[in-house]
Amino acid sequence: MNGADILCDTLLDHGVDVCFANPGTSEMHFVAALDRKREMRCVLGLFEGVVTGAADGYARMADKPAATLLHLGPGLANGLANLHNARRARTPVVNVVGDHASWHLANDAPLTSDIESLARPMSHFVRRIEGPGDVAAATAEAWRAAVTLPGVATLILPGDAAWTDVTEPPARGRQARIAPLKVASQTIETVAMAARKVLARGGRVDVLVSQGGLREVGLAAAGRLGTIAGLRVLAPGSNPRMQRGQGRVTLPRIPYPIDMGMAMMRDTDLLVLAGATVPVGFFAYPGKSGKLLRDDAEVATLATAGDDVAAALADLASALGAGPGGAVVGPDQKPQGLPSGRLSAEVIGQVVGALLPENAIICDEAITASAAIHAGTVGAPPHDYIQLTGGAIGLGVPMAVGAAVACPDRKVVAVQADGSAMYTIQGLWTQARESLDVVTIIVSNRAYGILQHEMRGVGINNVGEMAGRMLSLDRPDIDFVGVAKGLGVDGGRAETAEDLADLLRRGLAGRGPFLIEAVV
Amino acid sequence: MNGADILCDTLLDHGVDVCFANPGTSEMHFVAALDRKREMRCVLGLFEGVVTGAADGYARMADKPAATLLHLGPGLANGLANLHNARRARTPVVNVVGDHASWHLANDAPLTSDIESLARPMSHFVRRIEGPGDVAAATAEAWRAAVTLPGVATLILPGDAAWTDVTEPPARGRQARIAPLKVASQTIETVAMAARKVLARGGRVDVLVSQGGLREVGLAAAGRLGTIAGLRVLAPGSNPRMQRGQGRVTLPRIPYPIDMGMAMMRDTDLLVLAGATVPVGFFAYPGKSGKLLRDDAEVATLATAGDDVAAALADLASALGAGPGGAVVGPDQKPQGLPSGRLSAEVIGQVVGALLPENAIICDEAITASAAIHAGTVGAPPHDYIQLTGGAIGLGVPMAVGAAVACPDRKVVAVQADGSAMYTIQGLWTQARESLDVVTIIVSNRAYGILQHEMRGVGINNVGEMAGRMLSLDRPDIDFVGVAKGLGVDGGRAETAEDLADLLRRGLAGRGPFLIEAVV
Repeated sequence: MNGADILCDTLLDHGVDVCFANPGTSEMHFVAALDRKREMRCVLGLFEGVVTGAADGYARMADKPAATLLHLGPGLANGLANLHNARRARTPVVNVVGDHASWHLANDAPLTSDIESLARPMSHFVRRIEGPGDVAAATAEAWRAAVTLPGVATLILPGDAAWTDVTEPPARGRQARIAPLKVASQTIETVAMAARKVLARGGRVDVLVSQGGLREVGLAAAGRLGTIAGLRVLAPGSNPRMQRGQGRVTLPRIPYPIDMGMAMMRDTDLLVLAGATVPVGFFAYPGKSGKLLRDDAEVATLATAGDDVAAALADLASALGAGPGGAVVGPDQKPQGLPSGRLSAEVIGQVVGALLPENAIICDEAITASAAIHAGTVGAPPHDYIQLTGGAIGLGVPMAVGAAVACPDRKVVAVQADGSAMYTIQGLWTQARESLDVVTIIVSNRAYGILQHEMRGVGINNVGEMAGRMLSLDRPDIDFVGVAKGLGVDGGRAETAEDLADLLRRGLAGRGPFLIEAVV
Repeated sequence: MNGADILCDTLLDHGVDVCFANPGTSEMHFVAALDRKREMRCVLGLFEGVVTGAADGYARMADKPAATLLHLGPGLANGLANLHNARRARTPVVNVVGDHASWHLANDAPLTSDIESLARPMSHFVRRIEGPGDVAAATAEAWRAAVTLPGVATLILPGDAAWTDVTEPPARGRQARIAPLKVASQTIETVAMAARKVLARGGRVDVLVSQGGLREVGLAAAGRLGTIAGLRVLAPGSNPRMQRGQGRVTLPRIPYPIDMGMAMMRDTDLLVLAGATVPVGFFAYPGKSGKLLRDDAEVATLATAGDDVAAALADLASALGAGPGGAVVGPDQKPQGLPSGRLSAEVIGQVVGALLPENAIICDEAITASAAIHAGTVGAPPHDYIQLTGGAIGLGVPMAVGAAVACPDRKVVAVQADGSAMYTIQGLWTQARESLDVVTIIVSNRAYGILQHEMRGVGINNVGEMAGRMLSLDRPDIDFVGVAKGLGVDGGRAETAEDLADLLRRGLAGRGPFLIEAVV
């Protein structure tokens, strides 16, 4: 039994039975071990950004980490942008990176690089396996780090650690899942006291809810909190996973444009963080500090990402004397029926909202269209909503892969900006190979629309021809249906709301992936 | 005048007039400056790996660096794999990475990450611009580092350094190009002495030539050296750029398979490095040290990458008393005419060799087919041959972009493995947008063929179904012609040598990009 077998066994013992992979020579023993470990489902991505983004989407929906398998420093590098997103989402990932055999590093072979330096910025935990005898302990440690921090745990696996046999295999045994930490009652009381003080003087208290607080139970507790006068319950602009739809509490989100975000938080005297971090501007702009809160606003932490946020919200609601009922709902609770005519982001949102099946997963990397998709689907049947969290575009297609692998009995509807889609378009092939139930809607505006907005935000009002060429995706227009078909995914192009509805019905009725290019 | 203008001006003053870009919000002032700096040609890539790979290909052919423009840590991360290849090729690149405004870093906004930690492993030089007043000095320093080290110089540009106006613009003026360093005559004599000593005792001396030594002048000098009894002139297995074809000296290369490499170097007593590094195994294998040279072999450095390798070779030839003539030529100097029937790597090499126009550029990321392409084209009309150097697959399509931008009057023939093509397939769109004269031949074996070989190399002889799925690219087969058309590049599929010849003629006759899927 070699180190690769032990790695596989240890992952399985910890409940990690999915591995997204793009292996190379140094990982061949792990690949060979797959033939002996049929319980491990290994999914090939044609590019490492697909692998890491899929691991992110998988863990968000499975509530447990997947493993990755990446090839040396450059393979890791290709996967870093989506690990960045996973890090910002606080998604647990056991990120396995193969390296040369230990003695080969000194030879400085062509593919050698400083893996630790590459891994650290996008990892919460980095550990190099010291030899075949260290595989079991290091893997267990990485898994524990991934699920308890929670976040990205990078495990570097030298080739010789993988291929060398051990004489005494480590003990095996199914490990228990680790539940989120219960927040201490003292913390609840401290936060409640701070809130009472601000409310008593007529101030504004905001509770900012993310992570586990955005599941059904947490949302119900948030709804109770929302009935307290002077207290608002909000969500960050982007969240790893939010349960929503008919009958569920809907939280207003902090808008992306910095002026709107600042306006929303202008009167906040106390911000209570429930699985969220202090909201700041996405980017820096001339003459703006990048902060949304006033400098004299207080911040209190109720719960962090690894805590049981939902229970903490319920405890806080009780401590503040909130009643058992109450709900904060959006303005737009009912889907408006099917629109007609020309496509726009709003129209796409309405079509998706009207046709979304129950228990679907909306995967949102719609960027400039995101707000409209979010608004159009708020009253759809109950569903999960997963989003780009770290701003590194190219998560959408892979995240849909991961969500579909995690939830084979649910429909995934991925609403995807065109520019961002092109970063990891290779993920469509994995959707085809694995017959994943993903309908992708490409919002095709043939531009980096967000940058056209941002130009004005940073004070540039005149965009000439040369600059304009850097912001547009036309000349040539991308034929996304052609690209998808080339990668094994069927689809069609929609120019009107009626087209889109027809194609979406068709995509949802079938099994396997389908792509719709919605030209706006 | 703001920092972005100064950056642009300073680059132009140093002869850097091409920028490959995938910008984001933090880079918008550089983009806006392009409208005022018409001499700067800015080329958009839809993914950062395209940007950095194009910068590599460009500099290899233009003999001067391009700039890149990347967006924050994740944008840099997406470009790192091809910067790794550039670093291994010792290609000069001025790698500009935008960052948040300095004061925004403390806010830890979603896209914030440790850019220096990401950049260092793939850069020879990293420098953060300290403010608008530092832009000119920092840019000049980065350019100098890129061309003299030579290698990848990463320049981090905070948003506020780009958008803040300076009251006193820095002085402008065209900077002279920096010639490669002349190797000191003392070094020549030391190496010559070492060689004479080994030759005198009947030993074997190998001169390993790369970098500038592989241009026509260097090759001629290498040919003179090759006439000396007991002395061989060799090239590494992979080189940034090699001039070859009819009438040029051809150097045998060190083969990729480790056992063949070790066999080739078994009798080497003295290895003289002329722009090359000590050859080692590409990967580690059980029971092999990874070294090709015997432990008791001597190594002497004649010239490094930044030196005038061609002149050093000529000086060494004279010092060793080599005559003015002499050539080392491959066994296969004449192209064999057009083959017929089923396609194979060999047949593709023969077709390319037979039809290659004069002064073309062969861009080789053919991986398992590479040796056959190299062999088939050795006797073609004079051409340049550029190759994957760092082993990080996904360089081919972008490298062809860069070469075509550098040499608009030459044909680029890119022979490209299918699996590797999928890493940066987005580069085809840039070929279409810029109407680049690139004919891409996808060698479509529908597998990671190299890994099927490597499995055996690391001691795995039985590949089962699960492992096999990680090495194959079928189910579904990728339709590369469909993908290319979707990205704006016309093409066709070849199943026979005749098909391939027809399509290659058609692609070469036209202007603009063309793709051939050659199914083997």
